[in-house]
Amino acid sequence: MTKTILILNGPNLNLLGKRQPEIYGTGTLDDVHSACAEKARELDLEIDFQQSNSEGELVDLIQGANERCAAIIINPAAYSHSSVAILDALNAYDGPVIEVHISNIHKREAFRHHSYVSARADGVIAGCGTQGYVLALDRVAALINT
Amino acid sequence: MTKTILILNGPNLNLLGKRQPEIYGTGTLDDVHSACAEKARELDLEIDFQQSNSEGELVDLIQGANERCAAIIINPAAYSHSSVAILDALNAYDGPVIEVHISNIHKREAFRHHSYVSARADGVIAGCGTQGYVLALDRVAALINT
Amino acid sequence: MTKTILILNGPNLNLLGKRQPEIYGTGTLDDVHSACAEKARELDLEIDFQQSNSEGELVDLIQGANERCAAIIINPAAYSHSSVAILDALNAYDGPVIEVHISNIHKREAFRHHSYVSARADGVIAGCGTQGYVLALDRVAALINT
Amino acid sequence: MTKTILILNGPNLNLLGKRQPEIYGTGTLDDVHSACAEKARELDLEIDFQQSNSEGELVDLIQGANERCAAIIINPAAYSHSSVAILDALNAYDGPVIEVHISNIHKREAFRHHSYVSARADGVIAGCGTQGYVLALDRVAALINT
Amino acid sequence: MTKTILILNGPNLNLLGKRQPEIYGTGTLDDVHSACAEKARELDLEIDFQQSNSEGELVDLIQGANERCAAIIINPAAYSHSSVAILDALNAYDGPVIEVHISNIHKREAFRHHSYVSARADGVIAGCGTQGYVLALDRVAALINT
Amino acid sequence: MTKTILILNGPNLNLLGKRQPEIYGTGTLDDVHSACAEKARELDLEIDFQQSNSEGELVDLIQGANERCAAIIINPAAYSHSSVAILDALNAYDGPVIEVHISNIHKREAFRHHSYVSARADGVIAGCGTQGYVLALDRVAALINT
Amino acid sequence: MTKTILILNGPNLNLLGKRQPEIYGTGTLDDVHSACAEKARELDLEIDFQQSNSEGELVDLIQGANERCAAIIINPAAYSHSSVAILDALNAYDGPVIEVHISNIHKREAFRHHSYVSARADGVIAGCGTQGYVLALDRVAALINT
Amino acid sequence: MTKTILILNGPNLNLLGKRQPEIYGTGTLDDVHSACAEKARELDLEIDFQQSNSEGELVDLIQGANERCAAIIINPAAYSHSSVAILDALNAYDGPVIEVHISNIHKREAFRHHSYVSARADGVIAGCGTQGYVLALDRVAALINT
Amino acid sequence: MTKTILILNGPNLNLLGKRQPEIYGTGTLDDVHSACAEKARELDLEIDFQQSNSEGELVDLIQGANERCAAIIINPAAYSHSSVAILDALNAYDGPVIEVHISNIHKREAFRHHSYVSARADGVIAGCGTQGYVLALDRVAALINT
Amino acid sequence: MTKTILILNGPNLNLLGKRQPEIYGTGTLDDVHSACAEKARELDLEIDFQQSNSEGELVDLIQGANERCAAIIINPAAYSHSSVAILDALNAYDGPVIEVHISNIHKREAFRHHSYVSARADGVIAGCGTQGYVLALDRVAALINT
Amino acid sequence: MTKTILILNGPNLNLLGKRQPEIYGTGTLDDVHSACAEKARELDLEIDFQQSNSEGELVDLIQGANERCAAIIINPAAYSHSSVAILDALNAYDGPVIEVHISNIHKREAFRHHSYVSARADGVIAGCGTQGYVLALDRVAALINT
Amino acid sequence: MTKTILILNGPNLNLLGKRQPEIYGTGTLDDVHSACAEKARELDLEIDFQQSNSEGELVDLIQGANERCAAIIINPAAYSHSSVAILDALNAYDGPVIEVHISNIHKREAFRHHSYVSARADGVIAGCGTQGYVLALDRVAALINT
Repeated sequence: MTKTILILNGPNLNLLGKRQPEIYGTGTLDDVHSACAEKARELDLEIDFQQSNSEGELVDLIQGANERCAAIIINPAAYSHSSVAILDALNAYDGPVIEVHISNIHKREAFRHHSYVSARADGVIAGCGTQGYVLALDRVAALINT
Repeated sequence: MTKTILILNGPNLNLLGKRQPEIYGTGTLDDVHSACAEKARELDLEIDFQQSNSEGELVDLIQGANERCAAIIINPAAYSHSSVAILDALNAYDGPVIEVHISNIHKREAFRHHSYVSARADGVIAGCGTQGYVLALDRVAALINT
Repeated sequence: MTKTILILNGPNLNLLGKRQPEIYGTGTLDDVHSACAEKARELDLEIDFQQSNSEGELVDLIQGANERCAAIIINPAAYSHSSVAILDALNAYDGPVIEVHISNIHKREAFRHHSYVSARADGVIAGCGTQGYVLALDRVAALINT
Repeated sequence: MTKTILILNGPNLNLLGKRQPEIYGTGTLDDVHSACAEKARELDLEIDFQQSNSEGELVDLIQGANERCAAIIINPAAYSHSSVAILDALNAYDGPVIEVHISNIHKREAFRHHSYVSARADGVIAGCGTQGYVLALDRVAALINT
Repeated sequence: MTKTILILNGPNLNLLGKRQPEIYGTGTLDDVHSACAEKARELDLEIDFQQSNSEGELVDLIQGANERCAAIIINPAAYSHSSVAILDALNAYDGPVIEVHISNIHKREAFRHHSYVSARADGVIAGCGTQGYVLALDRVAALINT
Repeated sequence: MTKTILILNGPNLNLLGKRQPEIYGTGTLDDVHSACAEKARELDLEIDFQQSNSEGELVDLIQGANERCAAIIINPAAYSHSSVAILDALNAYDGPVIEVHISNIHKREAFRHHSYVSARADGVIAGCGTQGYVLALDRVAALINT
Repeated sequence: MTKTILILNGPNLNLLGKRQPEIYGTGTLDDVHSACAEKARELDLEIDFQQSNSEGELVDLIQGANERCAAIIINPAAYSHSSVAILDALNAYDGPVIEVHISNIHKREAFRHHSYVSARADGVIAGCGTQGYVLALDRVAALINT
Repeated sequence: MTKTILILNGPNLNLLGKRQPEIYGTGTLDDVHSACAEKARELDLEIDFQQSNSEGELVDLIQGANERCAAIIINPAAYSHSSVAILDALNAYDGPVIEVHISNIHKREAFRHHSYVSARADGVIAGCGTQGYVLALDRVAALINT
Repeated sequence: MTKTILILNGPNLNLLGKRQPEIYGTGTLDDVHSACAEKARELDLEIDFQQSNSEGELVDLIQGANERCAAIIINPAAYSHSSVAILDALNAYDGPVIEVHISNIHKREAFRHHSYVSARADGVIAGCGTQGYVLALDRVAALINT
Repeated sequence: MTKTILILNGPNLNLLGKRQPEIYGTGTLDDVHSACAEKARELDLEIDFQQSNSEGELVDLIQGANERCAAIIINPAAYSHSSVAILDALNAYDGPVIEVHISNIHKREAFRHHSYVSARADGVIAGCGTQGYVLALDRVAALINT
Repeated sequence: MTKTILILNGPNLNLLGKRQPEIYGTGTLDDVHSACAEKARELDLEIDFQQSNSEGELVDLIQGANERCAAIIINPAAYSHSSVAILDALNAYDGPVIEVHISNIHKREAFRHHSYVSARADGVIAGCGTQGYVLALDRVAALINT
Repeated sequence: MTKTILILNGPNLNLLGKRQPEIYGTGTLDDVHSACAEKARELDLEIDFQQSNSEGELVDLIQGANERCAAIIINPAAYSHSSVAILDALNAYDGPVIEVHISNIHKREAFRHHSYVSARADGVIAGCGTQGYVLALDRVAALINT
C-alpha cells in the first residue's frame, strides 16, 4: 500500500516566492508542492501538503499524522526557534521526521541558529533552497523502506 | 452557591496516556477529568475542564474565567516555557492560580526548568503525575474557603 | 486616495482599561480606537483597527496588509518578546512599521526588555500610554507623505 | 505493617510562624507536625518529623532513612539552593522523595529558583503554604501503595 | 503661567545633519530647535534647548531643572548606554521625563540596545527621526496638564 | 539598660593572626575580641563574641539573638559566598546587621566578590582590617541610639 | 567538459562503519565513495574523494580546489566545531559549498551544535546518514547547472 | 606636620539631603563636610573636601593629590560603576584609598553591585549612611599612622 | 620519625560500596582505609583516616592537621562544588594537598565539573576508583621526601 | 600643503613616565610629543598633540578635526573601555584613525580587553610602548598618501 | 602475552624540562620515558611512548592503538582544551584511557580548566608532576587485569 | 653579529593578495617577504620568513627559534582564535614576540576578537595592512637593541 508523507509548512511560507526573494528565492509554495508531488510519484509515495500560520494548528496537524502518515517533513519556519509545543507534538510521533529550512539559518541572525525541532528531527536540511524538500523526500523514502 | 474552578490543559495533553507513557504515565485526559470531577464533588466545587493546543485559545479561556471562576488550575505544558501571553492573561485574573506539571520538569531538558506561569502562580505542583490535579483542587479549596 | 493604516493589537489588549490600570491606565481599547479614528480623520487617513489573542491570526492580519495598507502600527504586547513569526510577517511587509507599547517595557521584568518586532520596526514608542497610538499616527503620516 | 515517612525540615524552619509571616504564614512547625500526624493517621502511615539547621545533620538523617523509611518528604529550605551533599544523600536513597517549599520560590530572588534537590525529587510542591506537606503525604501514600 | 520644558541633547548631536545622514537624516540641531519651538508655541509651552558633549555638564543641566522646568525631554545619545550619573540626576528629578532617540537603537549594534535612562524615563520614543522630539512635546503636554 | 551586640565570626577566623598574615594581618581573634570589648565599654554596650566553623551553628547563634541582642555584627568569612541559610536567619532577625570583612574581598578571587549576606546587611565594611569590627560597633551604636 | 566536485572528509571518518555504528551506521568510507561515484556518474560529474585527520592538510586540499573544482562537499567532522582555518580556506573559495554531517549534531553534546563551516556553507545536511553525501551531490548539481 | 586627606564626592552628591531621602537620608553635603571637619580635628588631620559632577574633574582632583595628600576618601557615586579613568587615576596614587557609599549598593539594582574603584581601594564602607565618611577618617588615621 | 598523613573523606562517603555501585564501585570505606593503611606501611607513613558529613567538622579536621600532619589527602565529595570554607581551611595549611575523586567528575553533571578545592590542591586524581587514594599516597610520599 | 595629524591622548596620560613605570615605561608625554614631532618632520607632516582627562573635551577635539586634520591617532586610555561618545565622534570623522595603547591591554584585566574605539579604528597598535605612536605616524603617512 | 600501553604526549611536551621549569619541573621527556619503562617492566607491561606537536598525527596514533594496545595514557597538553578530533578518536577506542597533566590545570588560566578529553577518559591525574605518568600506569595495570 | 628574526605566517596567508582583497588587500605574501627583507636590511637584521597551514608545523617552527632567533613576528591568522598549542610554544620562547594581523580583527566576526597569542605577545599590531609586518620589524629592532 502506498505510504503517505505529511509535508508541513510553518508561518509565512504561504508568501514564498512573493516576498524577500533574496533570502527565499522566487519559487512559490505551489511550486514546492508540485515538485514534491512529482518526486513522491517517482518514489511511489503519497504526500499530504499543508501550511499554517498558527502554532496550535501545526500541533493539530502533527497529532493527526500519528496513525495516518509514515513520515513527516516539516519546515517549521519561525516556530523552529520558539515552539516547544511543536517539539512535544513531534516527540509524541513515532515515525521519521526530517526538518527543512530553505535558507541556511546559520548564516542569519543569532536567534535563528537554534531550532527546538532539531532536538527531535532525524535529519536536518538547511540552505538547499526549495530543493531541500525534494532531498528530504529522498531521505524519507530511504528511511521507511529499511 | 457552588464555585467553579477552571482546569486548563495546554498543548498535546489531549494525547495523555496514549504517547510517551514513560514520561506521562498511562492515564488519559478523560481519566484526569473524572478524577477531578470526583474530587470536586467531594469538595463541593464545580469544574470547567478544558484543553487546547492553541496559545490564543488558552488566553481566551483564561480571560473568560475572570467573572465566572473562583480559581484556575493550569497545566500550561509546552507553553509554560515560551508564553508571555498566557502569563499576561493570568496577571489580569484576580483569583488563585495553581500550576500543575505531570512530570518533574526540573529533571528534564534545561529549557523546561523555567516556566513563565510560575511568576504568577500561587502554587506549583510538579512531578506528582496526574494526581497533581487532585492535589491542586485540595489547595484551591483551601484558598477560596479562607 | 485616502490611505489605510492597519492598527494591530496583540494578546490581552482587549482587556485594556478593565484590568491592571496601575500599569495600563483606565482607557479601554474602544477609547483607543476612537482616539485613533479622530486623529486619522485629522490626518486624512483611514484606519483598520484590529485585536487578536492569536499569534497566527496576527500573522494573517499583517500578511493581509501587504497590498492594502500604507503602514502598520502594531502593539504586539506579549508576543513582542517571543514571536519570530510576527517579525517574519513584518519583514515581508514593505511599508513603514511603528511599534507601540502602552507601558515603558524597559522598567518592567527583564524578559520584557527585548522585542523581536523592534528589529524590524522603523520607530518604537513606549511608555506614552494610549497616547502612543496617536503619536504613532503622526509619525506614520509624516513617513507616507514623504 | 505501618510504613514510616521521614519528614525533614531544613534551616530556619524552626522559626516558622514566628518570623516573616508575609512569606511563610502564621502556622508554626508544631502546627505542621500536627497536621502531618493527623493526615498520616488517616492514611495509615507513621511519620518521623525532624528539623535541623545543620547540613551535615540533614545528610545523617537522610542516610538513616535508608532501611527504615518508606519515603522522604523534605523541605530543604535554604539548602535547596546550595547543598550538593543533601542531593547526594538523597541520590543514595531508594524510596520516593517529595520536595516541599512553603512559598513559591519562583516568585522570589533569582538564586531561589534553582534547587539541587529537584534533580532527585520525584515530585515538587511549592507555594501551597504549610498545606504542601499534607499534599505531599497524599502523594507519598499513592506512590508507596502502587 | 507658561511652563518650561528642558530639552537636553547629548554628545555629538551638535553634528546632527552634517554627518552620517544615512543614520540621523539631514536636519540639523537648529532645525530641531525650530521645530520644537514651533510645537511648544502651539502647546503654550516654553522650551530651554541645550546640547553638551560633557556628561558632567548634562548632569548639571538636569539638576538645574529641578525647580525650574515642568518636564525634561532628553536625547542622551551615546551616554544612554554608559551613564549611571545621568540616570541618577534624573532619579533626583520629580517631573515627567521623555527619552528620545533619532534612530531606532534596537536595529543597531548590541551595545546600543540598553539605555540606563530608560529605567527612569516615563516614555521612550526611538526611530521617529527628529520628529521624535515633537512627539515628545505632545506627550509632555498631555502629562503636565493632567 | 545596657544593650548587647552579637559579634559573630565565621569559619577559619579562629586562625586569625596565625595563618596568611599577608591577607589577614597579624592580630589574633583574641585581639579583635579585646578591641571590641574596649570599644563597647566606651559606647556603653555589651558584646557577645562568638566564632564557629559550622554553618548550622552560626544559624543557631543568629536565631538566638532575636530577643536578646540589639544588633548583629557578622564576619561570615567563607560562608558569605555560599550560605543562603545564614542569609535567611538574618532575614528573620529584626535589628541592624553590619557585615565585616577583614580583607577587601573585591580585590580577591571573583567568587569572593558576591556575598549573600550583603543582600540583608544594613552596612558592609570590607578591607579595613580588624579595625573594621570597631568601626562596625561605632555604626551599630549610632543605629540603635536613633 | 565534466566538472569535478571535491568531496572532503575530516578527522576519524576513515574509521566510518568500523566504530560507533550506533552513531554513524555500518557503511564504510569506501561505501560512501562508491555511492558518491555512482551518483556522480548519473549526474555527469567527476568526484575527487579525500579524507584527512590533519586540519592543515584539509586547508591545503580546499586551497587546491580553487581553480580545479566546481564545488566542495565537506564533512568537517570534529573540525566543524573548532577550525577557523578551514572556514577561512572556504571563505577564499568561490564555488558552492555543501556541509554534510552523518549524524544529527543538534541531538548530541552542546559543543557539537555549532559549526564554523556553517557560516560559509551554502547548504547544510545533517542526520541523513551517509545518504547525506548523495543528497549533497544532487544539490551541487542543481547549483552549478544554474 | 598635619597631614591632609582628600575627601572626594562624585556626581549628584551635591543634592545630598535634598532628594531621595529614603535612599540617602536627610543630611546635606555640608553636614557631611562639617562632620568630617570635626572628626579630622579630633584626629589631628586636615581635610580637602570636594565635589564634582564631572569624571574628568574628579580625575584631575585625584592627580592633584599625589604629592599633597596623605590619603584619599572617595565616594565615586555613579562613576563607581562605569569609570575606568577614575580607577586609573587612583592606580597612579600611592597613599591609602577608602571608598565610601552612603547606601548599601549591594541591595540596589544589579549594575550598582560592581565598583571599578573597589579594585584599587584599600577599604570599602557601604550602607553606613553619611557616618561612613567619619568611619573612613578613623581608618585613614590608623593607616597613615602606622 | 614517621610522618602522618591526614586522609579526609567528605559527605556520604560513609555509604561507599553500599549505594550506587555503578558510580562508586563496591569497595567500602573500610576497604579504602585498609588499602591506605597497607600502602602507608609500605611507604613508612602513618595515616589518620577520617570521614564526616559536616562541612564545619571537615574544617576543624583540616585546621587540626596544621602542626600534626605532613600532608592531606582529601576527597571533599559534594563539598568540592560548594565549600569555600574548606578551601580557606586548606589555604591556611602549609603542606601538600592531594584531592581525590573516586568517579571522573568531568563525565557527570555540569555542577560537578568545578571544585573549589582544586584551586588549592597540588594534585588532583579523579576517576581512578578507590585506587585513587593509594596513588595519592604514592604522590604524597614523593612530595614530602623531596 | 603639509597635512596635520591630530594626536589625542586620553585620561591620566599626562602622568606618563611619572607613575607605574612597570606598565607604561619611563618616557613622559613630552618625550612622546618630541618623538612624534621628529617623526612627523621626517614624514613631512604637522602634528596637533593634545591630552585631556575629560571625555567631553576629547569629543570636542575629535569633532574639531573634521575639516582640519588628515588623520587621527588616538590613545583613548581608560575611555577605550567605556566611551561610546568617543566612538560616535570618531564615527562622524571621515579620515583614517589609528588607535594606540602603550601597554598590551590583552595581558591586563579582562575589562581592558574590549575597546569601543577598535570598532571604528582602521588600525590598532598595542603593547609597543611609546614607540607605538611613531609606528602609527608611519601608518598614517602611508594611508593619506595613497 | 605482554600487553602494550600507548603513552601519548601532545604539543610542546618535547620541550619538557628545558623550558618553564617553574610550571613543568626539570625532568625531560626522556626521563619520563625511562620512568615509565621501568614501571612497565615492574608491572609486566610493554609501552609505546610517543610525542607529537600535530593534532592530526595524535589522531593517527590513537587510531593505530585500536587493535594493538590494551590501554592509552594521554597527556594531550594544549590540545586538551581545543581538540574535538582527539576526543572523537578516543571515543572510537575501546580500552581504558587515563589522562595525565603534569601541572594542576585548575590553578592556571581559566581556558585550561576544561578538557575535551576528560569527557572520555576513565581517569584524570593532574598536578602530580611527571610522576603522574607512573601513577597512570599503576591504574592502567589495575584496570586491564580485572 | 647580525640577529635573525623569525617571521611566521599562519594558515591561508599563502593566498594573500589572490583572494578576498577587500579584506586583505592585493599585496601577495611574496610582496610582504620583499618588504620585510628590505626593512630588515635597513635595520641590519636577518629574517627567516615562513608560512604554514599546519598548527603542528607552526609549533615546530616556534620551537626551532629558541636558540636561533632574536625575536618572533607572528601572524597566527585563524589559529589566533583557537590554538593553545601555539600559545604554549610561544610561552616557552624567551625573546620578544610581536603579533600582526593584516585586517582589524576587532571589526570582524565576534570570534575573531579574541587571540590566544595576545596573552603572550609583547605587542599587537592589527589593521595596518601588510605594512604591519614592517612596523613590527621596527618594534623588534628597538626591543632587541635595548
